[in-house]
Amino acid sequence: MDERERWQELGQQLRADAVRASAKAASGHPSSSMSAADLAAVLLAAHFRYDFANPKNPANDRLIFSKGHASPLVYGIFRAAGAISEEEFMTYRQFGSRLEGHPTPLLPWVDVATGSLGQGLPIGVGLALAGKRLDQLPFRTWVICGDSELAEGSMWEALDAASFEGLDNLTAIVDVNRLGQRGETRHGWDLETYAARFRAFGWNAITIDGHDVEEIHRAYETAEGTTGRPTAVIARTLKGKGYSKIEDQTGWHGKAMSAEGAEEALKELGGVRNDRVEVPKPSGKAHRFNVGGGEWPRYEVGSKVATRKAYGDALAGLGGTDPRVVALDGEVDNSTFSEVFGKAFPERYFEMYIAEQQLVAAAVGMQIIGWKPFASTFAAFLSRAYDFVRMAAISQATIKLCGSHAGVSIGEDGPSQMALEDIASLRAINSSTVLYPCDGNQTAALVRAMADRDGISYLRTTRADTDVLYGPGEEFPVGGSRTLRDGDDVALIGAGITLHEALKAAALLAEDGIEARVIDLYSVKPADTETLRSISSPIVTVEDHRPEGGLGDAVLDALADAEERPRVVKLAVRELPHSGKPAQLLAAAGIDADAIADAARRLVREAAPV
Amino acid sequence: MDERERWQELGQQLRADAVRASAKAASGHPSSSMSAADLAAVLLAAHFRYDFANPKNPANDRLIFSKGHASPLVYGIFRAAGAISEEEFMTYRQFGSRLEGHPTPLLPWVDVATGSLGQGLPIGVGLALAGKRLDQLPFRTWVICGDSELAEGSMWEALDAASFEGLDNLTAIVDVNRLGQRGETRHGWDLETYAARFRAFGWNAITIDGHDVEEIHRAYETAEGTTGRPTAVIARTLKGKGYSKIEDQTGWHGKAMSAEGAEEALKELGGVRNDRVEVPKPSGKAHRFNVGGGEWPRYEVGSKVATRKAYGDALAGLGGTDPRVVALDGEVDNSTFSEVFGKAFPERYFEMYIAEQQLVAAAVGMQIIGWKPFASTFAAFLSRAYDFVRMAAISQATIKLCGSHAGVSIGEDGPSQMALEDIASLRAINSSTVLYPCDGNQTAALVRAMADRDGISYLRTTRADTDVLYGPGEEFPVGGSRTLRDGDDVALIGAGITLHEALKAAALLAEDGIEARVIDLYSVKPADTETLRSISSPIVTVEDHRPEGGLGDAVLDALADAEERPRVVKLAVRELPHSGKPAQLLAAAGIDADAIADAARRLVREAAPV
Repeated sequence: MDERERWQELGQQLRADAVRASAKAASGHPSSSMSAADLAAVLLAAHFRYDFANPKNPANDRLIFSKGHASPLVYGIFRAAGAISEEEFMTYRQFGSRLEGHPTPLLPWVDVATGSLGQGLPIGVGLALAGKRLDQLPFRTWVICGDSELAEGSMWEALDAASFEGLDNLTAIVDVNRLGQRGETRHGWDLETYAARFRAFGWNAITIDGHDVEEIHRAYETAEGTTGRPTAVIARTLKGKGYSKIEDQTGWHGKAMSAEGAEEALKELGGVRNDRVEVPKPSGKAHRFNVGGGEWPRYEVGSKVATRKAYGDALAGLGGTDPRVVALDGEVDNSTFSEVFGKAFPERYFEMYIAEQQLVAAAVGMQIIGWKPFASTFAAFLSRAYDFVRMAAISQATIKLCGSHAGVSIGEDGPSQMALEDIASLRAINSSTVLYPCDGNQTAALVRAMADRDGISYLRTTRADTDVLYGPGEEFPVGGSRTLRDGDDVALIGAGITLHEALKAAALLAEDGIEARVIDLYSVKPADTETLRSISSPIVTVEDHRPEGGLGDAVLDALADAEERPRVVKLAVRELPHSGKPAQLLAAAGIDADAIADAARRLVREAAPV
Repeated sequence: MDERERWQELGQQLRADAVRASAKAASGHPSSSMSAADLAAVLLAAHFRYDFANPKNPANDRLIFSKGHASPLVYGIFRAAGAISEEEFMTYRQFGSRLEGHPTPLLPWVDVATGSLGQGLPIGVGLALAGKRLDQLPFRTWVICGDSELAEGSMWEALDAASFEGLDNLTAIVDVNRLGQRGETRHGWDLETYAARFRAFGWNAITIDGHDVEEIHRAYETAEGTTGRPTAVIARTLKGKGYSKIEDQTGWHGKAMSAEGAEEALKELGGVRNDRVEVPKPSGKAHRFNVGGGEWPRYEVGSKVATRKAYGDALAGLGGTDPRVVALDGEVDNSTFSEVFGKAFPERYFEMYIAEQQLVAAAVGMQIIGWKPFASTFAAFLSRAYDFVRMAAISQATIKLCGSHAGVSIGEDGPSQMALEDIASLRAINSSTVLYPCDGNQTAALVRAMADRDGISYLRTTRADTDVLYGPGEEFPVGGSRTLRDGDDVALIGAGITLHEALKAAALLAEDGIEARVIDLYSVKPADTETLRSISSPIVTVEDHRPEGGLGDAVLDALADAEERPRVVKLAVRELPHSGKPAQLLAAAGIDADAIADAARRLVREAAPV
């Protein structure tokens, strides 16, 4: 059997595996796996370099199935490579199996969860960027994409970034099987339209018959030999290829075959095979940056600094001691202050332009191979990448996000620039940490804490300069809080900009003889349940955020199950804000010192024995 | 003065206006306005057809400033058209002014809020689609775009959709001023790269000098005369054009001039002008669809139907009586069941393919001119369009969203397909309504309620067939709840899939002599505060959603400020779920009947007098 026949056989094996695994599970996407089987077979047998015994080998090629629904094909590859047993293979989609409906990093050879289309390629850009500029290793990132997902804008963000950065170590393999979930895609088998678009975006594009193993092989060789730009292999395929009854038919997306159907299909495919592929193990040592020790920012108590500025300063400080810290920004680095890091460490800094999905995806890609990415933009615009953050959590990724210019306190720019739902949306993410500092030194401490924290960490920063309340070097553990003022009549709980308003309110209340406790809930998630449960007075929470899902709800949640709970009044931004001066907008939203003091007075009055 | 000179003069007027309005406000983006001033002047003076006295005139052209930061230019246009006075013009960015930092529909000539880049063109696609297929009027949608925002994937979703749909009534004007907020954009003045991309995406693309009014005029004429595809006018411009000190300089983004700088600039620009432009008023009557009366779905109590199926049935029922109802889907209409509507009313149905940002944006565009769009996809994938939903709320848009396949109860497909943060993220949106039905008849009633509700309405549907609990024709007001079982020992509050588990739990508890009240909180926002505050027993909330920001938090919020509050135990999905059978996953997450009963027993035991 010559090489070409072996590849064809392997393709048939992968098809047969997709059929039987999904039939056993009675669910899954065999037809979408069958179309890409030859593309995968040639890759595995003749191009992929990977140490299955050591997925963390930095020289490994990387393979991302952007079309994650073709998971039977992914697992068939792992079986062919000897990484998983036949027994485990047949646990596909069962409760407790590592072989989930869409691939997840429960399996050590899966770098990221896919299944939300259009994410694999942008993540691949992050990997390829890291390979070229950080690790400086010749590994190749292969991304198997579907054709339907080319409708996702995030794919074009990735294409733009990849060619601009000259990522010749990135190959996109597009399985153009013509059929989406419900019928034909927009462009069907119009490969030339796709190719023209890839070329216009600066890519080398090759159109091939995706079932001709020789053509596939030559295309991969061309990709490997192309320098200065990435290559797309755009392959015409048949959905359900290999089983004539479903080939190129609609109605077979996400549909497993019956036992009889599977038997018939397996017969046509030539039965079950058990070929093993020896994938060559690459070697190479990743580049490491030298660090000379950073200058850690120190702000004098009583001075003023914006927490966004402190973010940039602290990130640069961190960069000086931790060579794995990298930073990315969405063309607003002079607003988020990530530019401080960028100027200090240009080799570890990535400008991703106004493409927030690609911004977060690049961070996800880089953390796969051990980098510690901090990605920043306006907090409002992180909402653009919400699905990427959601999927990053499913990927069990560790990324650090910073959103600046949060809340109505930004002032004149108006509501489009005011993040008022960022805490809610990011608290709801699995594995997330949500931090909201009020001063420069606290910001710096929390940036340091984020660096070593697993999962999705989010830091919310403020546009305006605010008073420095804490001394340099003070500790702010994640999950903690600070009591800045004691008082038994009422407790005022804020964070960030509203903590300053709460302090002013406490001073106003003191004039009325009301003693207010002021708590800085800088760690919104996890929240300091112990401290919150120790409060027996009525509570006013105040946040520059919508009332749903923010700091106030974090407080309510901490108290929900307690035997005794005080009354809680939540102050938050309840109406659509407009443009104006920050102080005007805080007042209009009812979250300034006067509003806090008013709410506290009412609570104290109503709590008094009649 | 000939026509050409008048256009030039108008351009200078718009520049002078941008300079003085932003200088007065001491903030804003004059330089970004100055680059596009000639493009806007020629449009206003020679191409735009609009009835400023009647912005709702269906024959009006539409103008969207996708680069919303050029708001001084927008307001300068309105001043030149006589729509706003000099006095109001100078209130730019002041608290209480309609002239916000970025345009919002506080002004009746602004259709949508912009300021989050990359949204104007996708919304324009919605308008142009409506013009062509719904209103069937020859109005033109003009979208003024920046060059930085071409990095946003959403722009390319729009380009793909627009050419596919043959939207020759859509014109994109791209102001390529080369400079983003922090320096040069990826492609600088490489107009040919942009043009090649537009052409590859099926557009007619014209590159021009954006300060040559004659070239601009000819390009707009070409756009107007091009049939079968949209046209992009890609214009090379100078940021800060007209004031030599800042022309094409970095460091002048989002920066107003000092009083002295403004004076100098005005001098160079030839001073303040007060030219008025008479914009021709178009006329024409919008097409209206005939409706023949729809069949309203009825499901028998005791039968089973998936709420997602009921969504499709009800939407089709609605379409038969309300000719303004339209539907859009993201290539999953056979899963969301919007296909039921699509088959019944193909002329009012829009397949947007896998491009969720464009999906929501098209809905926003269509509602501008009075259509009632229902947009559906998997709830998990609506997260892709979160920034578009956020901005839609700022636009005071009225759109209806349906997210299917919510929660772990979808089963084998795994976590990438499970929306577990949709309630949290959508509750936090200004003006939002969040509905979560548990059965077919309730779904139908809520679909009907959504049709007439202002703002952002969201319906969460379930994959599995569930028991029909309510009779056809029962009423389910938004803000209401249903008590399905009475009991004084404990209250179980669920919605959707968990309501069924709560009912099963109540039956289990009854066996132990514990009487549980079961509340169906189908209206998660607004929640039925009155009913929730009437509960004196301990409460168990249960949701197929993360614990943050969902149904449990809605209950806590309703009780926050009450004098007396019972203990609340929140059951929710606290760990990363995996693949498995729905029942296995509900059990693993601790939100099935057994888990609910366990939590209730514990609460009842702990509440008992010792």
